[in-house]
Amino acid sequence: MRTRTFTLSLLLCITFLNAQESILGFTRENAKKQKTLETAFEAKLDASNLDEWMQIMAAEPHWVGTEYGEKNAKWIQKQFKSWGYDAKIETYHVLFPYPKVRLLELKGPTSYKAKLTAVPVEGDEFTAQGDALLPSYNAFSTDGDVEAELVFVNYGIPSDYEVLDKLGIDVKGKIVIAKYQGSWRGIKPKLAAENGAIGCIIYSDPADDGYGRGDVYPKGAYKNKTGVQRGSVMDMPTYPGDVLTPGYGATKDAKRLDRKDAPTITKIPVLPISYEDAQPLLAALDGAVAPQSWRGGLPITYHIGPGPAKVHLKLEFDWQLKPAHNVIATIKGTDFPDQWVMRGNHHDAWVHGANDPISGMVALMEEARAVGELAKKGNKPKRTLVYCAWDAEEPGLIGSTEWVEDHKKELQQKVVAYINTDGNGRGFLGAGGSHSLQAMVGEVAGTVKDPQRGVSIKERRIAVDMVRGGTEDFELYALGSGSDYTPFIQHAGIASLNLGFGGENGGGEYHTIYDTYPHYKRFKDPEFAYGVALANTAGRITLRLANADMLPFEFKQWHKTVSGYLDGIMKQTEKMRKEVEKHNTMVDKNMFELAADPKKPFLKPKKKEAIPYLDFTPLQNELAALKISIEMLSKMDVSKVSKEKRNSLNKKLIQAEHLLTSEDGLPRRSWYKHQIYAPGFYTGYGVKTLPGVREAVEEKNWKEAQEQISKLAATLKNFDKHIQEMNGML
Amino acid sequence: MRTRTFTLSLLLCITFLNAQESILGFTRENAKKQKTLETAFEAKLDASNLDEWMQIMAAEPHWVGTEYGEKNAKWIQKQFKSWGYDAKIETYHVLFPYPKVRLLELKGPTSYKAKLTAVPVEGDEFTAQGDALLPSYNAFSTDGDVEAELVFVNYGIPSDYEVLDKLGIDVKGKIVIAKYQGSWRGIKPKLAAENGAIGCIIYSDPADDGYGRGDVYPKGAYKNKTGVQRGSVMDMPTYPGDVLTPGYGATKDAKRLDRKDAPTITKIPVLPISYEDAQPLLAALDGAVAPQSWRGGLPITYHIGPGPAKVHLKLEFDWQLKPAHNVIATIKGTDFPDQWVMRGNHHDAWVHGANDPISGMVALMEEARAVGELAKKGNKPKRTLVYCAWDAEEPGLIGSTEWVEDHKKELQQKVVAYINTDGNGRGFLGAGGSHSLQAMVGEVAGTVKDPQRGVSIKERRIAVDMVRGGTEDFELYALGSGSDYTPFIQHAGIASLNLGFGGENGGGEYHTIYDTYPHYKRFKDPEFAYGVALANTAGRITLRLANADMLPFEFKQWHKTVSGYLDGIMKQTEKMRKEVEKHNTMVDKNMFELAADPKKPFLKPKKKEAIPYLDFTPLQNELAALKISIEMLSKMDVSKVSKEKRNSLNKKLIQAEHLLTSEDGLPRRSWYKHQIYAPGFYTGYGVKTLPGVREAVEEKNWKEAQEQISKLAATLKNFDKHIQEMNGML
Repeated sequence: MRTRTFTLSLLLCITFLNAQESILGFTRENAKKQKTLETAFEAKLDASNLDEWMQIMAAEPHWVGTEYGEKNAKWIQKQFKSWGYDAKIETYHVLFPYPKVRLLELKGPTSYKAKLTAVPVEGDEFTAQGDALLPSYNAFSTDGDVEAELVFVNYGIPSDYEVLDKLGIDVKGKIVIAKYQGSWRGIKPKLAAENGAIGCIIYSDPADDGYGRGDVYPKGAYKNKTGVQRGSVMDMPTYPGDVLTPGYGATKDAKRLDRKDAPTITKIPVLPISYEDAQPLLAALDGAVAPQSWRGGLPITYHIGPGPAKVHLKLEFDWQLKPAHNVIATIKGTDFPDQWVMRGNHHDAWVHGANDPISGMVALMEEARAVGELAKKGNKPKRTLVYCAWDAEEPGLIGSTEWVEDHKKELQQKVVAYINTDGNGRGFLGAGGSHSLQAMVGEVAGTVKDPQRGVSIKERRIAVDMVRGGTEDFELYALGSGSDYTPFIQHAGIASLNLGFGGENGGGEYHTIYDTYPHYKRFKDPEFAYGVALANTAGRITLRLANADMLPFEFKQWHKTVSGYLDGIMKQTEKMRKEVEKHNTMVDKNMFELAADPKKPFLKPKKKEAIPYLDFTPLQNELAALKISIEMLSKMDVSKVSKEKRNSLNKKLIQAEHLLTSEDGLPRRSWYKHQIYAPGFYTGYGVKTLPGVREAVEEKNWKEAQEQISKLAATLKNFDKHIQEMNGML
Repeated sequence: MRTRTFTLSLLLCITFLNAQESILGFTRENAKKQKTLETAFEAKLDASNLDEWMQIMAAEPHWVGTEYGEKNAKWIQKQFKSWGYDAKIETYHVLFPYPKVRLLELKGPTSYKAKLTAVPVEGDEFTAQGDALLPSYNAFSTDGDVEAELVFVNYGIPSDYEVLDKLGIDVKGKIVIAKYQGSWRGIKPKLAAENGAIGCIIYSDPADDGYGRGDVYPKGAYKNKTGVQRGSVMDMPTYPGDVLTPGYGATKDAKRLDRKDAPTITKIPVLPISYEDAQPLLAALDGAVAPQSWRGGLPITYHIGPGPAKVHLKLEFDWQLKPAHNVIATIKGTDFPDQWVMRGNHHDAWVHGANDPISGMVALMEEARAVGELAKKGNKPKRTLVYCAWDAEEPGLIGSTEWVEDHKKELQQKVVAYINTDGNGRGFLGAGGSHSLQAMVGEVAGTVKDPQRGVSIKERRIAVDMVRGGTEDFELYALGSGSDYTPFIQHAGIASLNLGFGGENGGGEYHTIYDTYPHYKRFKDPEFAYGVALANTAGRITLRLANADMLPFEFKQWHKTVSGYLDGIMKQTEKMRKEVEKHNTMVDKNMFELAADPKKPFLKPKKKEAIPYLDFTPLQNELAALKISIEMLSKMDVSKVSKEKRNSLNKKLIQAEHLLTSEDGLPRRSWYKHQIYAPGFYTGYGVKTLPGVREAVEEKNWKEAQEQISKLAATLKNFDKHIQEMNGML
C-alpha cells in the first residue's frame, strides 16, 4: 500500500486509509513528521515524575482558599515556567461556605447523636491529620435548624417520589434521608425541597458504597462505616460557578448578588453522613417496608416512615469570598498563534485528593513537561497550547467557569478544542465529548498501548464494551457534567473532550479523608502506568490538534450519533404512548386495585393524559439535509485545496461547535447554550442529549417539546448552512 | 340470550357460550342442577371449622412416625367417617432419618460453634416446646464426619459452578456453603458432590429470607436470625418416595434396597443453618470477592474462598422404618363408581406446620364435609370421590408416592383427575396442572368470589398478571414438583391440578419452628377466608368432574400451550447458537482476556462446540396434525351424541393424559414417565416442559436431543391417534 497515490480524501472522512501511514488532518508528509514527534513525546514521559508530584500536591488538604491550595498553585506555575511556558495565575473571588456547626441527632423514639467524623486508619498517616481535614459537609447547603419526622426516600430521584406518591406518603414538612448514587447528589435536596421537605440527609449505603462492594479501608479500597462523601449541592444544572456572579467572571470588583438571592444555593439544609451514622436513624423508622429495589446493605429491614424516627438537623456555615487561583500556562503557536488548543485539570481537592484530582493533574503536568521540552528543542506547536490548572472545581466547577465567563468572547474566537482530565485510574479508556472529534480520538486511541495488556487502549476499550454486550465501534460518550469541560462546551460552545482511565480501580475514597497517596498506591494505579497512558493519549490529541493541516473534525460520525439521539427520543415517545394507553386501560378495568394487597397502603392510580403525536419532521428533514452536506464535505479532495483555503476552512471548523448552541439557551436555564448536550435538570451529572426536546418529552410538556423541536431544527439548519459554506469554499 | 337454542357445542370448545347459563361438560339442564348444587355447597362452607381444626392438628409437632402424626391421621379418619365417608388408613413402612448428632464448628482462622437452634419468641408458646421440636436438619443427608476449607458457592446451582470455573476455583475436597433459594434445596448437595465437595452447608441469607424481606418474627412474619429451614434433600428428580422401594409400594413385606445402595440419599453430608450461624463462617472466608449478584444481606464483604475458613461438619442419623399413615376417604359414585375424582393434601409437617400443610388440609376437610352433607341429603356424586390425607410428604412425597405405586394399575384405569392442595394463604389463585383442564379451571375461577375484593378470583389473578406485565389470558402453570401431585401426573400419567392462594402472605416460617397457629393468624389468612375460597374452588372443580355429562377436558388450550413450549425450545436453541457464535468470535479475538482485570483471577474461556441445527420437524408435523384432530373434536355437537357413546368417549378422555407418557420414562430417571411435564434434573421443583428434549438441549447433548424429539413425536402421534379415535366414535 505504500506506493499508491496519496490523496487527502481521508480528511473529514471516516474511511481511514492505511492507518500506518495516515493521520486524520495531516498531509502524508506532515503525518510522518507528526508520528516522529509523537514517538519522541511518548519517550519523554516518566512515571516517577507523576509519583513524586502526587506526593507533593496531595501531602495536605487543599480545598479552595486554603494555604496549601495556594501553595500548590504557585508550585504548579513554577513548574510550568521551568518547562518553558508563559505561566500566570488568574485569581477570582468566589463565595465558599465552611461548616461552622454540624449537628444531627435522633430525638425519638430512640436517641443517637451522629458522629460525623471518619476515623484514621492504620498505615495511612494522612487520615490522622485531625482538624486539618475538612469536616464532612455538602457545600452550598443553606444554613438551617430543623426538627421533624424522618422519611426514607431511596435515592431521592423523581421515580422515587412517584413510588411515594403511589404509597400515599408525603414528605411535606419532613426531613428526608436519601442514599448517595442514582443521581448527582445535588438533585436530592433540590427534589426534596420541591416536594416540601425541610431538611435532607444523604448517606452512603454499604450495598452501593461499602462492604457490599468489597473489603473496606484499610483492608480493601472500599468505604468503611465511618467514611463520608463530601461534595457540592449547588444547583449546577441551573448554572455552575460562583453562585453570586452568574454568567460573568467573579473578579474582585464584579457586581455580586445578595447571598439570599443566589438561586443555586439549596432551599433546605443538607448533610452527608456515614452508614454508621445512618443505621440508627433508618432502624428507627417504621411504616411501610421499602420496596425491594430500595433496600440497601444494612442489617435491618428498611422502612419508609414517616417517623416515628424524629431528627434534629442544625447547620451553619461561614460564608466568605475566597480566592480561586487558576494557573494558565501557554506556549505560543508558530503558525497560528490565535488558534488555541486547551488542556485542563483542576488542582483543588476536598481533602488530600490523591485520586481526585491529583492523579489527573500529574498526568497533565507530565504531558506539558514533555511538550515543553520538545518545544525547547525546536518542535514548537503550530497552534498555541494553553494548559490550565483550575481551582475550586469541587464546590461547583467555579475556577474554570469564572475564567470561561470572564474570557468568553476571546475563547469562542480562538479555541479549537478543550481537552479535560480529572481523577485517573487503572483500566479502560473512557472518552467523552463532541462527536465531531470521535474519529480523531479513535485514531489516537489506536496508537496508545495499554500498559497491562500490550494491545492498544482502543482494542481494550472495544473488548470490554463487547463483553458487556456492546458493539465493535469506538464511541465517545456524550458529556453531561461533573468536571471543568462544562463551561467550555455547554456555555461557550467550544468543542470539548473528557479523558480518563478506570474500571479496575474501584474504591470508596471519593471525596473522603481516605483519598490519599497510600490508598492510591495500593488500589488505583500503583505504577502510574495509566497516568502515563493518559498523558500519552491527551498529549497526542493535543499535538494533533495543534499541528494538523486541516483540523481533524469529522461529521459523518457526528451525524450518525445525533440521528441516533433523535431516534431514541422518537422511540421513547412511542413507548410512553403505549405505556400510558396500557396504564389507562388498566385503570379503567380497576386492575391496579384488584392486584393490590388490601392490607397495604395503596392509592388508586389516576388516568394519565394521553401522549400526543409530536411532529418530529422538522428535525428529520434537517438531519436529512445535513447528511447530504456532510457527505459532500467528506468527499472533498483536500490535496486540491490551497493552503489559503485550508486556513479559511480551519477557521470555519473552529466555529462549527458554536453553531450548535443557541444564545437564549435551554428553557429555565439560559446559561446552558448547547443544543446537543446538557446535564439533566433532574439527573445532575447525567447527560441529556438534544436536551431541549428530550427533557420536554420526559416532563410531558408537549407544547414546549414542539417549540424545542422547531428551535433545534433552526439550530441544525444554521449548522447545515455552515457546512454548506465550507462546501462552497472548495 | 335465554331463549336461543341450546346445543352442546360448548363441550370441548374454548368459546364459552353465555357463562351464566352453561358449564363446560354439562347439558343445559344438568348445568342448572349443578349450579344449584354448587351454590348449596358454597353455602355450607364455614371458616370457623378451619380455624378450630388447625388448632387441633397444629398443636404439636407431627412429622412422619410421631405419635401426634398418627393421632392426627386417626382424627382425620374419624372426621371423614362422621361426614359419611368410607374412610380407612393405609399404612406404608418407609425409611426416615432422625438426627442424632449435628455438629458444625469453624476451626480456623477464628473459631465458632454453630448453635443450630432457633429461639422461642414472645407471644408464640408453640416455639417454646424445646425438645419436642424436631431439630433442624436436611432429611436424607448421608451420615458424615468431614473437615475441610470452606467455599461460598452462591446458590450452588449449575450457573454458579460455571462462574467458579471461570475464576479457577475448585470445590474438590472442600466443604461448600450455599444460600437457600435459586433451586430446590436438594440440588445443592447433589451438584456439590458432583463437583467433588465433601460436605455442604445451606443457609438462609437475610437478603432472600430475613430482614431483607421484611420485619422478622415476632415483630413481623420474616425469618429472624435463628430460624432454620428444614427440608428433604433426597434426590427427588431421580425418584421421590421411599428411598428403599423405588417404583413399588413400601408395604410391610416389600423387598427393600440396602440403605447403602439407595441412589436418592445424598453422597455427602448436608446441614441447614441460620444466618446467625452462617455469618462467622462467611466472614472468615477470603480469596476472590463474590460477584455482585452473589452477595447477600449480611453486613460483610462476601468472599468465595477457598478458606482460610476451615470447618468441621459431623452428622449422624437414626435410620429407621417408620409407619406412614395415609387416610383414604371415599364416597361411591351413583352412576360411574369406577370413575374416581381424587382430592389430596398432606397432613404431616416438619414441626407444627400450621401453614404447611394444615392450612390446606383444613380447607380440604371443610370441602369434604360440605360434599358429604350434600350426599347425605341425596346429592350424591355421579362419580366416586376419593379424599386423601397423605403422610410423609415432607421427607419426599413418600406417603402419596407409595400409595400411587402400590395402586398404580387401578388408578390408571379409574382416576379422572387428581386435585392437590398444600399450604394456603392470602392473595391470588395459583393453579397449575394438565392443560386439558385449563378451560374448566378458568370457568370455575370465574364463579368464585375473592374474599377481599369482591370480584372473581379469576379477575384478580388476571389483574395481578397484567400489572406484572402478563396477558389477559387465564393460564395454568406447568407442574414441576414439590407436592403430592407428582406421583399422579408424572409417574402414573393421571391428569392433575395443584391449587392454592398466596402472594399476600409473605413470611419466613417455611419449615421452621415458627410455622405456628399464632404466626398463621397474624400473617397468613387470619379469617380463613382464603381457606374457604380454596375449599370453594377445589370443591367446585371436584363436583364438576364428578357430575359432568361429558368430562370437561379441552384440548385447544392444551395444544396452544404445548406448541408454545416447542416454540420456546426452538428459540432457545437459536439463542444458544448465536451466543456460542459470539462467544467463539470473542475468544478468537482474545476479547475476554483484554476485558479482564490482570490483577484478578481469570481463566481464559475456551471455545465452545458449535450448536448443530436440530430437526424439530417431527414435532412440528405432529402438532400440526394434532391441531386438525383437536379442531374437529372441538366442533362436535355433543347433543347429537348418544349417552352410550358419551360414556365411551368419557372412558377415552380418562385415558388421554396417560397417552402423554412413555413407559420407559425420561433418560436416566425412568420413574418419570410424563413427556410434557417433569421437575428439572438440575432445578428440583422447577418444571421442565417437554423435558426429554429441553433438558438434552440445555445439557447440549445433541444426540439425545434428536432421539428425544423422535420419542416425543411418537408420543404425540399416539395421542393424536387417540383423539382421532374419539372423532371416529362420533
